[in-house]
Amino acid sequence: MWNHTEVTRQLKIQYPIIQAPMAGSTTPELVSAVSNGGGLGSIGAGYYSPEKLAEDIRNTKAITDQPFSVNLFVPEYNEVTSTQIDRMKEILTPYYEEFNIEPDMPTIDKDDTFDQLVQIIIDENIKICSFTFGIPDPVTVKKLKKAGVTLIGCATTVDEAILNEQAGMDMVVAQGFEAGGHRGSFVQTALRSSVGTMSLVPQIKDKVTIPVIAAGGIMDGRGLYAGLKLGADAAQMGTAFLTTKESAAPKIHKEAILNSTEADTVLTRSFSGKYARGIRNRFIDEMDWHQEDILPYPFQNQMTKKIRSKAAAEGKSDILHLWSGQSVRLSRDVEAGELLMDIVNQVNKILRNENYHK
Amino acid sequence: MWNHTEVTRQLKIQYPIIQAPMAGSTTPELVSAVSNGGGLGSIGAGYYSPEKLAEDIRNTKAITDQPFSVNLFVPEYNEVTSTQIDRMKEILTPYYEEFNIEPDMPTIDKDDTFDQLVQIIIDENIKICSFTFGIPDPVTVKKLKKAGVTLIGCATTVDEAILNEQAGMDMVVAQGFEAGGHRGSFVQTALRSSVGTMSLVPQIKDKVTIPVIAAGGIMDGRGLYAGLKLGADAAQMGTAFLTTKESAAPKIHKEAILNSTEADTVLTRSFSGKYARGIRNRFIDEMDWHQEDILPYPFQNQMTKKIRSKAAAEGKSDILHLWSGQSVRLSRDVEAGELLMDIVNQVNKILRNENYHK
Repeated sequence: MWNHTEVTRQLKIQYPIIQAPMAGSTTPELVSAVSNGGGLGSIGAGYYSPEKLAEDIRNTKAITDQPFSVNLFVPEYNEVTSTQIDRMKEILTPYYEEFNIEPDMPTIDKDDTFDQLVQIIIDENIKICSFTFGIPDPVTVKKLKKAGVTLIGCATTVDEAILNEQAGMDMVVAQGFEAGGHRGSFVQTALRSSVGTMSLVPQIKDKVTIPVIAAGGIMDGRGLYAGLKLGADAAQMGTAFLTTKESAAPKIHKEAILNSTEADTVLTRSFSGKYARGIRNRFIDEMDWHQEDILPYPFQNQMTKKIRSKAAAEGKSDILHLWSGQSVRLSRDVEAGELLMDIVNQVNKILRNENYHK
Repeated sequence: MWNHTEVTRQLKIQYPIIQAPMAGSTTPELVSAVSNGGGLGSIGAGYYSPEKLAEDIRNTKAITDQPFSVNLFVPEYNEVTSTQIDRMKEILTPYYEEFNIEPDMPTIDKDDTFDQLVQIIIDENIKICSFTFGIPDPVTVKKLKKAGVTLIGCATTVDEAILNEQAGMDMVVAQGFEAGGHRGSFVQTALRSSVGTMSLVPQIKDKVTIPVIAAGGIMDGRGLYAGLKLGADAAQMGTAFLTTKESAAPKIHKEAILNSTEADTVLTRSFSGKYARGIRNRFIDEMDWHQEDILPYPFQNQMTKKIRSKAAAEGKSDILHLWSGQSVRLSRDVEAGELLMDIVNQVNKILRNENYHK
C-alpha cells in the first residue's frame, strides 16, 4: 500500500500527509480534523505563550484521540541599535498613521519561553515535535528524546538536512522554494538559497538516512504521489490547508489565495525580518525601497505586528502578510477532512490507472 | 506501460525522455545517442547559421534513423543606443584586457536567419521542432504544420502555456525554476517569475489540453516518474545530458557541474541579456554591480561572446557561462546511452517496488 511509509509507521498515522504548522493560522479544529482524517495535524506554536500552547493542546485533545504535533520556532538572538529601531519606526509611520495606532516598540526577546513550551510538550505527553529556524540545543534534544518525543527538523539545502540528522532529528522536512510562509533556512549559506522541491527532495534523500518529508508546492494527490516517488516518505502541505474552513487565516487572506495565480507570490523580509513567501501586495512593494533598513527577526516582526493585526481586522489585504505557496491555482474552499480524503482518493485513482495500463 | 504516453505516441519514440536542446552544447553524437536509445534527441540550433544547421542535421541522420528535433530561438528586436553599447564596452574592458582581445561590437540582428533555419527543417524533413523565447509568427506556424512538423513551445507560467496552445503548438514544455540555462519566459509578467516544477506542471496541466512536458530539476528516474505523476506526458532533461561524454560543453563546464552542490546556481542576465541559471562565478559576481547597464538580448550576448570563447579555450571557469540546473548532485560523467538506460531502469525498479508492496 502506498500509504504505509517509514513516516506513517513512526508517527502512527494512516496517510503520509502532514498539515504544515502555520504559525498563527492553526486551530484545534484544523489540527483535529487532519488527525481524525488519518493525517498528521500540527499546532503552529511559533508565536505562542506557554498558556496559549497548553490551552490549544487541551482543546485539540478534546476533539481528537489521534496523534498530532507541535511546532516551535528555535529562538535566536540578534542585536539591533536604537538608531536602527528609530529608522524603521520612521519608515513604518505612514502605516501606523493609516490605522491610527501607536508604534510597536521591539523588546529584547531573551526569555525562557522556548524552554517553557518544551516543558508543556513533555507534560502534555505530546509525542511529535517539529522545529523551524534551526536545530534546538543538545540539552533540549536530549530532554525531548528521553520523553519519547519524535523530532522533526526542517532543511532548505542538503547541508541543513545533514546537520538535522547529526543533531538527532528523527525526520527532516525538505522545504522547497515553492513553499509558502517562512523559509526554514538557518545556515548562513542557505539564507539566499532557492532550491525547488523537485530538485531538493532527491538530493537530500541521497545524503541522509532519516526519513524525508517533501514540502513546497504540494496541494493534491498528484503532488503527494510525486513527492513519494522523489524519495520522500510523506508530504507536508500548508497553503492547501490554509484556505480550509477550520483554518484561522483571516477571510481576506483565504480569498487572496483562492483568487491568485502561480506567479503572484514573492519572497519578502519586510514583515518579519526573515524571508517568507507571500502574495505580493502594496506593503511588500512599498517596503522594497527600504530593504537595507529591515531589522533582523524577531524585531521587524514585533514592529509590524500591530499594523498587520489592524489590517486583518479592517480587511486591508494590501497591508496584510498573505503567506502562500506557489500552487495557488490548486487551492480550495472546503473542510479540511474533505480535502484530506480527496487527496487520498486522487492517489488511489492514480494507482488504479497505473494498474489498468499495465 | 509507463513509457507509453501521448508524447511518445505523437513523437514516435519509445520513452518519454527528451534531451533538452542546449544551444551550443549539443552534437550529432549526443542527439543520436539519445534518439537511438529510445528518447528524443534535440539539436540546439538557437545560435546556428543555416549552413551549420544543415551540417548538423546531415551528420545526425548519418548515425541515427530515429526521430530527433531541432530547437530554434524565436527572434526578437530590441533597441540599444551607442551610449549604452559604449558603457557596456567600458564595463567589459577588464575582461577584454585579461584575454588580450578586441571588444565584440554588437550588430543589429534583423536578418532572415530564422526563416532560413525553418526552411532547412522543412527541406530536411525534420518532423519535430521546438521553440524558446516565444511563439513563432502565424505564417511560420502554418508553414511548419503544413509540412507535418510537430511543434513544441515553452512556458514558465500558466498564461504562457495557454498562449502556446492558442498559437497552435502541439505540446508545451513546463519549464520550472530549477532548470539550467536560459529561462524561456516571453510574456512581460513572466520575466521575473520563479515557479518551481512541482508547482508549475499540475497548474499548467489543468489549463491546457495539449500534452505537457515537465522540465527543471529532473535528472533521474525518480524525477521522470514524479513529473509523469504530476500530469506531464514526458520529462525534458538538460543538465543530466550536459555532463555526458557526447556533449560539446567544455571540460571545465562539465567539471564545475560534477563538483557543485544544489545551492551553487543563480539566475543571471550578465552573459546574454536574458535570465539564465548557471553556477555562480567571478563574472556573475562582478557584473552584479552593473545590472542597470546590462544590454537586452541579443546585444549583451554578442558583447560577451568572445570573452566566453576565450575563457573556455583557456580553462577559466570563473569567467565562463556555467549553465546548470539545481540538481547538480545527481550529475554523472557517463555516456548518454548509459544515462538513458539507467533512467529507464530506475523507473522500472520503482514500479516493481510498487507492485511488490501491493
